[in-house]
Amino acid sequence: MKQQIKLYPNTKTKIAIGLLSGTSVDGIDAVIVKIRGYGNNTKLEVIDFQTYPIPVEVKKAVLKNSYDRSARVSEICRLNSILGILFSNAVIKISKKNGLLKNGKVLADFIGSHGQTIHHLPDNKEFAGHRIKSTLQIGDPAIIANLTGVTTVGDFRIADCAVNGDGAPLVPYLDYILFSSKTLSRGLLNIGGIANITVIPKNATKRDVFAFDTGPGNMLIDGLVSKLFRERFDKDSKIAGKGSLNSRLFEFLLRDKTYKKKPPKSTGREQYGSEYQELILREAKGISKNDIIRTVTEFTSFTIWYNYEKYIKPKVKLDELIASGGGCKNKIIMSSLRKYLKGTKVKEVYSFGISADSKEAVLFAMLANECLAGNSANMPSVTGSKKDVILGKICLAY
Amino acid sequence: MKQQIKLYPNTKTKIAIGLLSGTSVDGIDAVIVKIRGYGNNTKLEVIDFQTYPIPVEVKKAVLKNSYDRSARVSEICRLNSILGILFSNAVIKISKKNGLLKNGKVLADFIGSHGQTIHHLPDNKEFAGHRIKSTLQIGDPAIIANLTGVTTVGDFRIADCAVNGDGAPLVPYLDYILFSSKTLSRGLLNIGGIANITVIPKNATKRDVFAFDTGPGNMLIDGLVSKLFRERFDKDSKIAGKGSLNSRLFEFLLRDKTYKKKPPKSTGREQYGSEYQELILREAKGISKNDIIRTVTEFTSFTIWYNYEKYIKPKVKLDELIASGGGCKNKIIMSSLRKYLKGTKVKEVYSFGISADSKEAVLFAMLANECLAGNSANMPSVTGSKKDVILGKICLAY
Repeated sequence: MKQQIKLYPNTKTKIAIGLLSGTSVDGIDAVIVKIRGYGNNTKLEVIDFQTYPIPVEVKKAVLKNSYDRSARVSEICRLNSILGILFSNAVIKISKKNGLLKNGKVLADFIGSHGQTIHHLPDNKEFAGHRIKSTLQIGDPAIIANLTGVTTVGDFRIADCAVNGDGAPLVPYLDYILFSSKTLSRGLLNIGGIANITVIPKNATKRDVFAFDTGPGNMLIDGLVSKLFRERFDKDSKIAGKGSLNSRLFEFLLRDKTYKKKPPKSTGREQYGSEYQELILREAKGISKNDIIRTVTEFTSFTIWYNYEKYIKPKVKLDELIASGGGCKNKIIMSSLRKYLKGTKVKEVYSFGISADSKEAVLFAMLANECLAGNSANMPSVTGSKKDVILGKICLAY
Repeated sequence: MKQQIKLYPNTKTKIAIGLLSGTSVDGIDAVIVKIRGYGNNTKLEVIDFQTYPIPVEVKKAVLKNSYDRSARVSEICRLNSILGILFSNAVIKISKKNGLLKNGKVLADFIGSHGQTIHHLPDNKEFAGHRIKSTLQIGDPAIIANLTGVTTVGDFRIADCAVNGDGAPLVPYLDYILFSSKTLSRGLLNIGGIANITVIPKNATKRDVFAFDTGPGNMLIDGLVSKLFRERFDKDSKIAGKGSLNSRLFEFLLRDKTYKKKPPKSTGREQYGSEYQELILREAKGISKNDIIRTVTEFTSFTIWYNYEKYIKPKVKLDELIASGGGCKNKIIMSSLRKYLKGTKVKEVYSFGISADSKEAVLFAMLANECLAGNSANMPSVTGSKKDVILGKICLAY
């Protein structure tokens, strides 16, 4: 017996690595953090954050295998391992860059890996005689543990689904630990592929926090920019900047039902992915390419504002809205939000010492820390789950 | 923090539950065992073994989702949860039956669950720029942990694939611990959907053990009995008993390349499943249904004998061949083996205190025990993996 699971004393400072690939499958986010304590006493310090590109053929295979019409079980099986290898490579690279690779050994205490979501079904639809919520992440944590030699915790969402939760969003736990305030009511808006918001009323307990996906984040913009301009994203919102809002297309978008749903709610590529984007393109016949991108950009901001007005403001008037994720670099989204949200300061998260990009990767390092401490980190008030559970599966390295 | 991972002292007797659904997806095998120690010092006692049926619509959905042409990612996502629920129900039922359910709480120390394999790819074929071995089990252990309230270890195979192993067979570890002998060379033959054999030369160390899949176990017989007679299996080999070997069909079967391959090798539904069975039926036009079943039954025995003669006997002459799995109840298979294997005693495993049926479920209770002890339980000499790893992912109940 070479190793036992280490249960760190509350006072020890641990080196943890957080890993994530988002719904857009552009790259692996890797963050090195120092963590001390757990739960309400967690202290975090970000040491480095890097994004490592995912080879285009792997990205294509992941997207192909996220849809029923094109997925193949053999490819899902292989991609689970391949992504595990890519995540391991990211760990090795960021460790080397930071002097944490010695004699081929990664000198971290543990890794927390979200993996890659290829399907997310919080809909409770009946199948084979059962009504269940489910979610599927690949990029196997057992591969990461064995290729890096570091205890790896992964697959954080499914335990919440087991007790009838949506398994998403998970970021409210980090938001609650890092951003709760005695004097300010704060909203934490993450604009990734999907946009989600966490509301932390001033002086909140964990049960007062609520959060939900508002609708599309970058997914519609990135997807349509890729289809129309062969670019990965709308850099500096230059493409949208050259277009104007097309009211016919905007009205079509407003008919989408998902962003209007009452929280708790979560969404994903099933709703705003390629299939819906093709629908938009059919609807947008005759509209200029720049106008299409401007319109979906404005629609993205609109869905955020709509959700604030309808589902947040009546309960909590926000003093601050703190944005993170790739979308907070989109100037049009940010200026629209500032225009809509009078009386609320719209900030970016880096003013709090965590970069907009790294926030979700930090979350998974933190969730691994909670799992190894035997601590529950799901948020029933956010995901709708029936009880507190421990998130994550522990894979030991030998 | 309500719970910590329990690392049991070597001397404590633990109650463990082993779970398994095999390639035929007929039922969930559940076993309760008392375990003391680990590694070479493991002591096991089987308390109860039960098989709980899998609803036919779930079985159909699992089989449908095991093939590329019919699998759907959304269904795989849901089945992962549904099977987790069915495994949990099996734990609760067998616990209740044995007085281990008190006030709704399962009084076991841990659960080891194999899950349900829906794909197994030890072929190293290139995909998306990578050559990797992979395997995919569903029936999420995080669901089992949270619905039973018991620490659950699952997903045992992928860690071995991470270090270039086939991830199968796993049973040789149990065979080695339970059946090694100073005076007898033993072969442990498990006839499940696939047949595999473990060879333990007398006085062996772990590295002397070798094992491999010989070819079909019950898969061809069960599949064709289902297609031709609408029965689940050939009970008491009555169907085959009324037929005779058809030499034209037998010669066709002999052309199969998988059973002839040099070990180490592993196989599965990809090779002997519905697609191959349909091929057999096309080839068997004009042959009576009973003759078809008799012929595939004889072929199944032949592949076991062929592998013994070619790949075992030249190295180790077996004193005993100990059969387990559903197939050891097939009288025609067993009598053919006794006829072929002169000089080797052919026994059934229950003469050793473990029933033929329960053996694989016992394995997963035992592997969970090794994982929780931080002990490596893969067998590089068997699976071809490059190094020792810890098998399994630990899911904590809160």
